[in-house]
Parts: sequence; structure tokens; C-alpha cells
Amino acid sequence: MGAAWAVAFARAGHAVALFDSSSEQIHKHALPHAHRTLDLLSRAGFLEEGTGRVLARIDVAGSIADAVAEADYVQESVREDVAIKRDVFSEIAAHARPDTVLASSTSAIRGSEFLGHISHPERALVAHPVNPPSLIPLVEICATNRTHADVVSRTKDFLTEIGMTPVVVRKEIDGFLLNRLQYTLVAEALHLVGEGYCSAEDIDLIITDGLAPRWASIGPFAVAHLNSSGGFLGFVDQLGPMMKRIGQDARTDYPWDMDLARTIHAALAERIPVSDIPEHQDRRDAQILAARKIRRPAKLQQR
Amino acid sequence: MGAAWAVAFARAGHAVALFDSSSEQIHKHALPHAHRTLDLLSRAGFLEEGTGRVLARIDVAGSIADAVAEADYVQESVREDVAIKRDVFSEIAAHARPDTVLASSTSAIRGSEFLGHISHPERALVAHPVNPPSLIPLVEICATNRTHADVVSRTKDFLTEIGMTPVVVRKEIDGFLLNRLQYTLVAEALHLVGEGYCSAEDIDLIITDGLAPRWASIGPFAVAHLNSSGGFLGFVDQLGPMMKRIGQDARTDYPWDMDLARTIHAALAERIPVSDIPEHQDRRDAQILAARKIRRPAKLQQR
Repeated sequence: MGAAWAVAFARAGHAVALFDSSSEQIHKHALPHAHRTLDLLSRAGFLEEGTGRVLARIDVAGSIADAVAEADYVQESVREDVAIKRDVFSEIAAHARPDTVLASSTSAIRGSEFLGHISHPERALVAHPVNPPSLIPLVEICATNRTHADVVSRTKDFLTEIGMTPVVVRKEIDGFLLNRLQYTLVAEALHLVGEGYCSAEDIDLIITDGLAPRWASIGPFAVAHLNSSGGFLGFVDQLGPMMKRIGQDARTDYPWDMDLARTIHAALAERIPVSDIPEHQDRRDAQILAARKIRRPAKLQQR
Repeated sequence: MGAAWAVAFARAGHAVALFDSSSEQIHKHALPHAHRTLDLLSRAGFLEEGTGRVLARIDVAGSIADAVAEADYVQESVREDVAIKRDVFSEIAAHARPDTVLASSTSAIRGSEFLGHISHPERALVAHPVNPPSLIPLVEICATNRTHADVVSRTKDFLTEIGMTPVVVRKEIDGFLLNRLQYTLVAEALHLVGEGYCSAEDIDLIITDGLAPRWASIGPFAVAHLNSSGGFLGFVDQLGPMMKRIGQDARTDYPWDMDLARTIHAALAERIPVSDIPEHQDRRDAQILAARKIRRPAKLQQR
């Protein structure tokens, strides 16, 4: 995750200092990953300069202090463990400038649980990316109960400037927004598979061949707006009762168990053996970039 | 909808007889729509022959009897009204061959409610497309309590042959599968917007810039499988508790009202005035076809 962020920052022209407590992690995994990702971005036409020039902007720091001392923006991506994150942010806060934005990649923990204790907590917030942020533009920004509003807007501006799509979560909520949408859908999918209405592969086909071709172009509210000559209100007038019925009928609390997970894993592993996962990741990544190209700058994309 | 189906069938080389009780509907709307759609498919490289040749395969029938007498496959797409559908299917069944597949496009009604009374009900089922089926391949096949298994497999084979992606719903369920997934996600989105966590536009961005770039390539179960070196089981071992928590926490029964719908409509109409909807539909349609091109035949897509 840190390597993918490094690519996102360096690609936009920024100098990056990368730090990990394991030097092996940096040299055996992070830097080679950054290199491969930049090659992919280059092949797909997402780089305006050579891979080597971008890579040269990524330096390895010898300590947290070294990494953050000169930084305008810090992005933490350590393990999802409150105690570890608290310690890492204490260290970051002690060495970063008081006006530097301190952002956490957490997807699972509210920022207020590990960002409130540091010096100048008003400069710290969550900037939760989608894996990998080198390829997918969306970032969820979420202030803690101590973050200054100005830090939220500086973070939003910075992420926009480097080509990301920041969305501000206005109040802290578990799972933020993207994972709530994703796993609410997955929860109903587990209900449908668990109760024998279809297979997990059917669910995947319904998304790739049914819903995603529209959603890669426009989001679900815009889908409804364009599906009625009266716009969203016209759609709701006609189909609101159906929307309500499905919402009430959804079984997102379905008690799926590891037996169901094993069945789904076995079916997936038949299509994609675990040993072939890296190769399929490469194809997925290339297709993610292809999907990003289908929209051209247009009114629909302006904020 | 009928016109879009006609395009899907004719594009694959089949002769189509189109019938509507309103001849004006056929000549002012259905045929011009088929023409425009074929032009779009042609520009996007989805036609192997000229628009005119495909269009020439679509005939207008003078009655239901004329339309279905010689047909191997009948696709009904009338209004979502049980009484109307029952009447139309009585008429179709009286004139079609007993071995002809009789399919309904219904998205809202269980087939058993309007297909059981006809002669030879074993030949009738639901084939629910995504709007428009001329552009989006997914179709949900759902048998009634009287459909013969052989008719399900013949329908699946036929839809596969014409380039669609059929998925068989194994037991009747309200909303079938695609709309359950879609509106379960939308229900949680309405909760998030209604409770002030974000705007409807933020939801749309989270989908287009966050979730859809992956989902246009691989479905949600495959996303999890590729996000862990241990595959789906490895993912669930690590993130299962988070998945469960979000499913339990989702508020898909959120009691949204017309005030919220009006607020969302107003925000959408600022980006896309209702008068501009047709122009945005055209862009959406072109982008749907672009999204379909990002996947090349590969293991991931084989059934």
C-alpha cells in the first residue's frame, strides 16, 4: 500500500521518502512493486515521462524522523492495529512540521481512536484509498473529532492536484462509505449464494456483465436519473416502492459461515488457482486502467 | 425494451417479428430507436455487417398471432401489470408452437404469477434483461413452478449463442438477483445521504471512481480472491469480521422519503438538467460499450 501511494505521489511530480521498519520489505517488495506499477502505467499511457524519472523521485528514508522531517504531507499505511498506529503517529507527530498534513490509510478504524493523542492533532485525518491507489483514484477523507476544517480542504486540494478523486466523509462512521457500499452488496450476495439462489460465479457475472458496464460510466443515482424521462424524481415515482421493498427484504445480516466461504473459495480456485493469483492481478490491474479511460472529461465528471 | 431486444436478436443473425398494439409506438419509437442503437453499435465496432442489413431482419407484425406463429423464441416486454401480462401470454400461447420458448422481460413480478395458466406452461419463463439489452449482456433466467428444465437450458443456450450472458436464478425470488444487489447498495446509499454522511454525488463518485474500475474487470467475490495471497479464504480469515460488521450495520430499511428524493433530484438536475437527459443517455451508452471492450476473452470470463 505504501509503495502504491509512493507511485501516486511521484507520478504527479512530488519527491517521496519511503520508510518501513523492515529494510527487506522496502527493497524486496515495495520498490520492485513501484517499478512494476510504473511500467504498467507507462504502457497504458498514464505516464507523461519515463518510468526511471518517476522512480528517481522515490527515496528510501532511514527512520520515521528522516522520512517526515521535510514532508508537506505524510501518508501512514501500517498494519490495522490501533496500538501500532498510535505509536507510529506519536513518532510522526514528534518529527513532522506542525502544519504538515498527517494522513492515515486505515480502512477499518475511526481516526479519532488513534489520532487524537498526538501533538497538534488538528493536522491529522484519515485518507482511505482503494487498493491500489496507484491505479484507482478514489480516496475517502475523514476528519477526526479534532481535525481542523482547513486541513480537510488542504488534503482534498492536494489529492485532487495529484489526480485522485477525494470524497469527504462528513461524520465518522465504521467502514467509511466505499466499504459500506461494497460489503452491503456482498452481504446480500452471500445471502443469495448461501440460500441457493445462485452461485458466487453468477454474482460476479451479474456485476461484471450487468451492473458495472453502467457504473463504470455513471453512478447509481445518475443511472436512475437517466432511466426516466422525469429524471430521478420520475424514477422514484415509478419504482420507489420496488426500491423500498428490496431494501426491506435484503438480508445483509445473513449468518454466513466458513463452510459457505470454503465453497465459494473452491469455486473461485477452480477458475483462478491460488498459485495463479499474481498473473490474474496483473490482468485486473491492466483492465482497471482500461476502465478508467472510458470516460473523457465531461460535465458528468466535473465536481 | 422490445426494440432493444429486437436489435440483440437481429444483430446475431436472427429474423425478428416486432409487435406492439400501437403502430405509432413501433414506427415513431421502436424502429428509430433500433436504428440509432445499431448505428452506435456499428461505430463502436460491435457489428460485423452494415446497419441496414441488420435492420432488414426486423419485420413489423400485424398481430400477436402473426408475430409468434413461426417463432422459435418469443420475448414479451409489455407493461409491468400482472393482468396485462396474463392476457398477452394467453394470446401468445394460443398461437405459438408448443415447443417455442416463451420468455418475459419482467423485472418486478414472479413468473409463476402470470405464466402458469397458459397452455403448455412448461415452455414459459422469465428472461429479465438489463436496460438496454442491446448494449448490456446480462440476462437473468428464472423458471416458474411449471417450467421444464429443458426449456431453461435451451433459453440459456440461445441467449449465449446471441452473445448475451445468461445467469440462471435457481429459485424464484422478488427482484431476482441483479436488482436485489443494485437496490440493496442503493438502500444503504440512501441511508448514508439521508443521515448526512455524504452527498448523492459523492456516492456516484465512489462507484465510478472507486468500485466500478475493479468491478468492470472482475466481480466482488473475485476481487476478494485476488486481494489476498491466500485467495478468498485468506481474505475472509482476515476481513470476515469486518464484512459481518458492515452487513449487520447496514441500514437498507432506512425510511427515506420524498424530501430526500427531491434533494437528490435537485443535485442531479444541476449536473444533468432533465432536458439534457437524452444527450447524457447517448454518452452513457457509448461508455457502456467502451466498458465492455476492456475485457478480452480469457480464463476469467469462461463459464
